[in-house]
Amino acid sequence: MRLSQYFLPTLKEDPKEAEIASHRLMLRAGMIQQNGAGVYTWLPMGLRVLRKIEAIVRRNQDAAGAQECLMPTIQSADLWKESGRYDAYGKEMLRITDRHDREMLYGPTNEEVITDIFRSHIKSYKDLPKNLYHIQWKFRDEIRPRFGVMRGREFLMKDNYSFDLTKEDAEYSYKKMFLAYLKTFRDLGLRVIPMKADTGPIGGDLSHEFILLAETGESEVFVDAKWNEVDLAGKDIHYNNKPQLEAYFDELTNIYAATDEIHNPETAPKDIIQTRGIEVGHIFYFGTKYSEAMNATVQNKDGKTVPVEMGSYGIGVSRLVGAIIEASHDEAGIKWPSEIAPFDVGIINLKVGDEQTSKLCEDVYTKISATGLDVLYDDRDTSAGAKFANMDLIGAPWQIIVGPKGVKMGMVEMKQRMTGEKFDVKISSLIETITTKLSDLKKGY
Amino acid sequence: MRLSQYFLPTLKEDPKEAEIASHRLMLRAGMIQQNGAGVYTWLPMGLRVLRKIEAIVRRNQDAAGAQECLMPTIQSADLWKESGRYDAYGKEMLRITDRHDREMLYGPTNEEVITDIFRSHIKSYKDLPKNLYHIQWKFRDEIRPRFGVMRGREFLMKDNYSFDLTKEDAEYSYKKMFLAYLKTFRDLGLRVIPMKADTGPIGGDLSHEFILLAETGESEVFVDAKWNEVDLAGKDIHYNNKPQLEAYFDELTNIYAATDEIHNPETAPKDIIQTRGIEVGHIFYFGTKYSEAMNATVQNKDGKTVPVEMGSYGIGVSRLVGAIIEASHDEAGIKWPSEIAPFDVGIINLKVGDEQTSKLCEDVYTKISATGLDVLYDDRDTSAGAKFANMDLIGAPWQIIVGPKGVKMGMVEMKQRMTGEKFDVKISSLIETITTKLSDLKKGY
Repeated sequence: MRLSQYFLPTLKEDPKEAEIASHRLMLRAGMIQQNGAGVYTWLPMGLRVLRKIEAIVRRNQDAAGAQECLMPTIQSADLWKESGRYDAYGKEMLRITDRHDREMLYGPTNEEVITDIFRSHIKSYKDLPKNLYHIQWKFRDEIRPRFGVMRGREFLMKDNYSFDLTKEDAEYSYKKMFLAYLKTFRDLGLRVIPMKADTGPIGGDLSHEFILLAETGESEVFVDAKWNEVDLAGKDIHYNNKPQLEAYFDELTNIYAATDEIHNPETAPKDIIQTRGIEVGHIFYFGTKYSEAMNATVQNKDGKTVPVEMGSYGIGVSRLVGAIIEASHDEAGIKWPSEIAPFDVGIINLKVGDEQTSKLCEDVYTKISATGLDVLYDDRDTSAGAKFANMDLIGAPWQIIVGPKGVKMGMVEMKQRMTGEKFDVKISSLIETITTKLSDLKKGY
Repeated sequence: MRLSQYFLPTLKEDPKEAEIASHRLMLRAGMIQQNGAGVYTWLPMGLRVLRKIEAIVRRNQDAAGAQECLMPTIQSADLWKESGRYDAYGKEMLRITDRHDREMLYGPTNEEVITDIFRSHIKSYKDLPKNLYHIQWKFRDEIRPRFGVMRGREFLMKDNYSFDLTKEDAEYSYKKMFLAYLKTFRDLGLRVIPMKADTGPIGGDLSHEFILLAETGESEVFVDAKWNEVDLAGKDIHYNNKPQLEAYFDELTNIYAATDEIHNPETAPKDIIQTRGIEVGHIFYFGTKYSEAMNATVQNKDGKTVPVEMGSYGIGVSRLVGAIIEASHDEAGIKWPSEIAPFDVGIINLKVGDEQTSKLCEDVYTKISATGLDVLYDDRDTSAGAKFANMDLIGAPWQIIVGPKGVKMGMVEMKQRMTGEKFDVKISSLIETITTKLSDLKKGY
């Protein structure tokens, strides 16, 4: 993409309304635009990141055996009356009345809709287990939306729902998702730790939050130093190997990790790390809470009708964009993990008027793009200082800086955004260097 | 995908509520489930088709130079008051009040929001032209939603918006989108004809509808027989070759094509075809209607401030799923164009209990999947008749039928869903045959 043509409205000044780093940087880097309280447009560069995260979430759901569907944003109030949550949910639910005075709502979560779909079609244990997910916009009418996409009202969530015959099967489904979440976060290039959690309004008796460690995070957390040594990606663990998966689950859930709400210094280990974190995922096993209320039953092997055992599993896809920036930025701007960077490489042309320099930039731009990498080429006729600042703000993992002096000597400069490291590269070996560096970054774990 | 594990709740009986073929077949084939009046869940197989269509639409927008963003579903009423459409839009607009009594709405279209984004960032002719699109859910509170996804209330639309300095530039942008639409529909495997249209509530003085020809379509249409000879995909026309594009636009828009609303037998050519059609796209040039009302201006070369020239362009992505089925089905079920089929190939195992037959099916399933094709393997233990009926209903372009007799002779049967043609193939040459047949289908134009 040529920056001269790209719709990337970056800001030089810090926007006044932004209280935290990710909100400030997303506005400054032209990723989002606010349209109302807690409601945002994803501008082209912001959308690129959102889609990359979504693709990684999807890939891991599919690998774990979940099947994708897409429920609507608008739901009927009737289902919520059936489950008993219509009155209980309170003012966070955006209630809507249509032209025929039917009561509807903008879905804040989907337990009711999915239970209704399940009971319409599945009647026998033979069709179990099932795990259905979707990645859809939700709305929660927060009393005071803030922090940009970290606590927006309209937000993108991946939520899925498991259906099993027995409690034991349902716990196995829960553990599969536990593993899928760890794999997802590692594929995103993130350090996320699972912590035992309260189940809150969803209900149930088994629940974990997934907390991204970030010094500017919303919650204080306490984690055993052992987490530094654990295989957090479950590399050799297979979904279909139940004993192996259960042993891994037991291993991880026995290592201390707690938010300040449930932290207990008396039971905590001595070698503990106190830091901050951001919730980016939450999983629940809640048994028959909804299936009993909504009469979602199956016949078991004995021909007896029993309510189906359920769990639900959420990842805040749009929230992750903000959370990742909280965990990875500096004063100059965003430092994208290469897995989800909107652009892999940024090319800075230091002298647009110089024929040799522009020719080389065009050549490099064409060749790197042809390898399948996403490249942003700053071909604008502005000062070198403005271009450096802009590229650091945007945060592409690698920068290629091309100026007339270097071109004469057959060299360009490369800069790694994450470390700040700079070095000169021969033009003849540039393409090889950049593709090697990027594949190194992406296989970092 | 193994059908025994897939969530594909097909129906044997025609659902009573479905008045038209596409609605009936989408329900019967387990593609959608109704959640409320005009509101649907896309079940896994339905979502596959929706995503394939979306990808083709996106690819053609990108190729034409449009940039993707994503506006929210919930909009502020203020912008609509500014444009003057808040009261004018009537009851089709779903109006919402939040917990702080702010007036909001579920976007039925996005002229106001995009104009607001434009005016916040773009101030100079140097940043023009710009063309921004998104693929997002919309809501129109139809008084009587019906025909399934063909006239739903919550529906997926691709809409984009062009911004230019002059009327001439804006018309060029319009013609680029005209070409992009033709290419999109041809990539979808469809026969779609552009027809001059009224501009309606969007406003403006240049507009075309894109009509998919289908005998069960909603509108009567009259088209010159010459359309059969025209290159409807603009194969050799390039977006950046303005004279060439204009000549092509003039050529096509001079061939008679009219819906019954504007058909005039006196001006129509003699060699005319009367048929039916379904609107699947609509494009508008409306000049400064919104930019004047909302003060979206740019400085021109003389430093003078002028309102920006705009156009808008819509494709009904979810509607297309229904429209395509209307154009391509028979009594037995759906006949998917191979470009957007949810599965390229269906494998029918005629005798699940037979070891040799099942072994061959598994082998074929693994090998075809490995070529990157989407395969649905009917591995259920049900009757051959039920499996044939089910696979015809689902409509995969190719079926591979594997039974014990054939296996003994080293043969399987193949069936092309579109034509009904059947023939036997040696097992040893099956993979080659299927990949050749499918690539033939996909390069059919």
